[in-house]
Amino acid sequence: MKRLEGRRAVVTQVSAFMGRDVAAMFREEGAEVVADDRDLRAAGAAEALIAEAGHVDVLVANLAAEQPRTSVLDTDDATFRAMYEAMVFPLHRLVRAVLPQMLARRRGKIVVIGSASALRGAPNYSAYGSARGAQLAYVQDVGTEVAPHNVQVNAIAQTFVQNPTYFPESYQRTDEFKERIRGAPIGRLAHGWESAALALFLAGDESDFFVGQVFPFAGGWVTR
Amino acid sequence: MKRLEGRRAVVTQVSAFMGRDVAAMFREEGAEVVADDRDLRAAGAAEALIAEAGHVDVLVANLAAEQPRTSVLDTDDATFRAMYEAMVFPLHRLVRAVLPQMLARRRGKIVVIGSASALRGAPNYSAYGSARGAQLAYVQDVGTEVAPHNVQVNAIAQTFVQNPTYFPESYQRTDEFKERIRGAPIGRLAHGWESAALALFLAGDESDFFVGQVFPFAGGWVTR
Amino acid sequence: MKRLEGRRAVVTQVSAFMGRDVAAMFREEGAEVVADDRDLRAAGAAEALIAEAGHVDVLVANLAAEQPRTSVLDTDDATFRAMYEAMVFPLHRLVRAVLPQMLARRRGKIVVIGSASALRGAPNYSAYGSARGAQLAYVQDVGTEVAPHNVQVNAIAQTFVQNPTYFPESYQRTDEFKERIRGAPIGRLAHGWESAALALFLAGDESDFFVGQVFPFAGGWVTR
Amino acid sequence: MKRLEGRRAVVTQVSAFMGRDVAAMFREEGAEVVADDRDLRAAGAAEALIAEAGHVDVLVANLAAEQPRTSVLDTDDATFRAMYEAMVFPLHRLVRAVLPQMLARRRGKIVVIGSASALRGAPNYSAYGSARGAQLAYVQDVGTEVAPHNVQVNAIAQTFVQNPTYFPESYQRTDEFKERIRGAPIGRLAHGWESAALALFLAGDESDFFVGQVFPFAGGWVTR
Repeated sequence: MKRLEGRRAVVTQVSAFMGRDVAAMFREEGAEVVADDRDLRAAGAAEALIAEAGHVDVLVANLAAEQPRTSVLDTDDATFRAMYEAMVFPLHRLVRAVLPQMLARRRGKIVVIGSASALRGAPNYSAYGSARGAQLAYVQDVGTEVAPHNVQVNAIAQTFVQNPTYFPESYQRTDEFKERIRGAPIGRLAHGWESAALALFLAGDESDFFVGQVFPFAGGWVTR
Repeated sequence: MKRLEGRRAVVTQVSAFMGRDVAAMFREEGAEVVADDRDLRAAGAAEALIAEAGHVDVLVANLAAEQPRTSVLDTDDATFRAMYEAMVFPLHRLVRAVLPQMLARRRGKIVVIGSASALRGAPNYSAYGSARGAQLAYVQDVGTEVAPHNVQVNAIAQTFVQNPTYFPESYQRTDEFKERIRGAPIGRLAHGWESAALALFLAGDESDFFVGQVFPFAGGWVTR
Repeated sequence: MKRLEGRRAVVTQVSAFMGRDVAAMFREEGAEVVADDRDLRAAGAAEALIAEAGHVDVLVANLAAEQPRTSVLDTDDATFRAMYEAMVFPLHRLVRAVLPQMLARRRGKIVVIGSASALRGAPNYSAYGSARGAQLAYVQDVGTEVAPHNVQVNAIAQTFVQNPTYFPESYQRTDEFKERIRGAPIGRLAHGWESAALALFLAGDESDFFVGQVFPFAGGWVTR
Repeated sequence: MKRLEGRRAVVTQVSAFMGRDVAAMFREEGAEVVADDRDLRAAGAAEALIAEAGHVDVLVANLAAEQPRTSVLDTDDATFRAMYEAMVFPLHRLVRAVLPQMLARRRGKIVVIGSASALRGAPNYSAYGSARGAQLAYVQDVGTEVAPHNVQVNAIAQTFVQNPTYFPESYQRTDEFKERIRGAPIGRLAHGWESAALALFLAGDESDFFVGQVFPFAGGWVTR
């Protein structure tokens, strides 16, 4: 028996970040996957996606924006705000749109793919890292709120995972990358499927006891 | 010798949250305090405040917005976004405006008065708590970035502290408060001056070795 | 294909704590399980167990001692030390005995079943909680040390999980329990198999990217 | 007015670790300091120290043992256990001996000087780091237990602080040190007095709202 047999999952922004890997693994494990790629920054987009999807057992909130890599002084208002428009405000709209059916069924899973950069400081991360921090605190609060209704909301806080948005092959050849990876005790990037396997664990029945929790996934670079 | 003798400090949104207590204690300890009360949501307001203040040794980023106390489902976009307009975007503008002089002098302190609600989940906190989470991640990143320049940025993540915004006397008489305070091992509210004393510690020379750090201040309700 | 097909696992102190549930689930998933019940406090016992077991792919270090529930003042030296003799010193002996073969093969998993009580303070836990804290720090250090050799050491920090040692049915009927469970947002005990499912995840290939990490498993009572 | 005027403090193992710096600063701030140097591993030693000291307002539990720097495989039972005999078991005996008078007066402070190595994994730290982890969990539990009696127990989890035990000048000239210090965003060692200033903060009235809390003090190497 496959682990997501009979489940219907929505994966957002599927061309970016962990979208393709999660969709592939979920399908392998029997899920019917709505792999969506619309721009969720637009008003109404999140709500439309959920309405079109219909029955949703699992929402994988996979939201990404290019890390601007600017110093605090060089991060203008538009750059800063863009992180929130892409990763924080749509998260709330997605969750708010999908929760009613999950609460009504007393069954549902929301997995937020977030970043370990919200758990440990780094230079030139103020815009990106703070938006990722908002995501993790959001998951803690919503996860706690809906826990008594048997809906589980959790987050992956990852880094050093192969993906087209943050660790494309071109980046892996840079000196910056080679220096950064030295900070990970495991000394390698994760394959995309390894992060997807954690998402799978959090989407399945095995993990029902986890609520509002953040899972660092960083090869030891950060573990709490 | 007083602990902030000869220092010039800016305290923002002084009528709210910890503003009055911090300003009072800093003055007692010899600081010249610019206690400002303008609305920092407006474009240019943060920059104007810093420009008017001139020399700033210490910035106390004291930003508050009423906690809407709405469930996820009842938190509309405007309510959600209002938290960020009041507490997150102005934080970045304040920090960006004040950092250049601190970096040039290789000396300066930024203390962000934040919330422990970003460290532990609670129902009906998704908007407020997530914005507070953005603040804490921001402090980690900026604190790490400017640490080599001998500027220190840290945050207080507090709750159960007397203040006019979140724990007014009227609220202390409610059943909700009496239930909540049972969750604090210490079993009492902090006086405002106790949080101000932590801000004082973080504003003075004694704490130069702390960078990008978040100090839970919650009577044991959360300690990490 | 079963998830531990062809793997050989040792589960220690099998009659206590999570032993039976872990052994059962691992067998269901295809593992050959050495379910041992010897007293590991005795000199040489840990080494003998590993020697007898031979090839070990997975070590589940399931170590338990009755929580004395004494106040600090009432915790005498013998009681305090007994926690370490049962849960900390044998852990090191087990790990030291099993690591050489894992390092030689560049393959192996150690899962420590620990306690969330090491992550959040509670009255009358000083002896038990501190020994559990030693376990978690040990896992962080050993996990980091052996990570480059492709051996993964991680820990579960659990509470509110049904098991014969800490949450027997008799205890579930007490007022103390009913008060304590209110502190878990999820509002229920985990079934033993749910913790075993986390151990399974940490014993399998899916979780290779986790090293030296502690997984709070507490229904939201503690999440970091 | 000095910050510890009229207070009587015991500083243990004064020749090691932070002993001299803490004793010096506490005296400067008006405390009467019992600076003790007896071996606290011996049965009865902790109890005798407290009995001789008489009235104790502040206990600074400064306990140290040389870090063996051995790999897991090379850490024999005696080495492992020695960490606990030096740093964990005496901590409990000290706390148990001094608490009765503090509880009776409903007033007292215990500051444990611990290590950040318990908060983040590192190779060759299994013995030392795990014992330091036991200390921190102990502080959380005892701090929570005695909080309602107005006695405050907290810990400093430090690293990269100048002291004769772990960062003597000879070590600062090694390549290992130069590599390690790169991991601290602040890029320098703390002076001993800076850690003492944190101990002072935790020993004084200003910090009464902190209970059972661990303060990372590591120049940004670890911040939570």
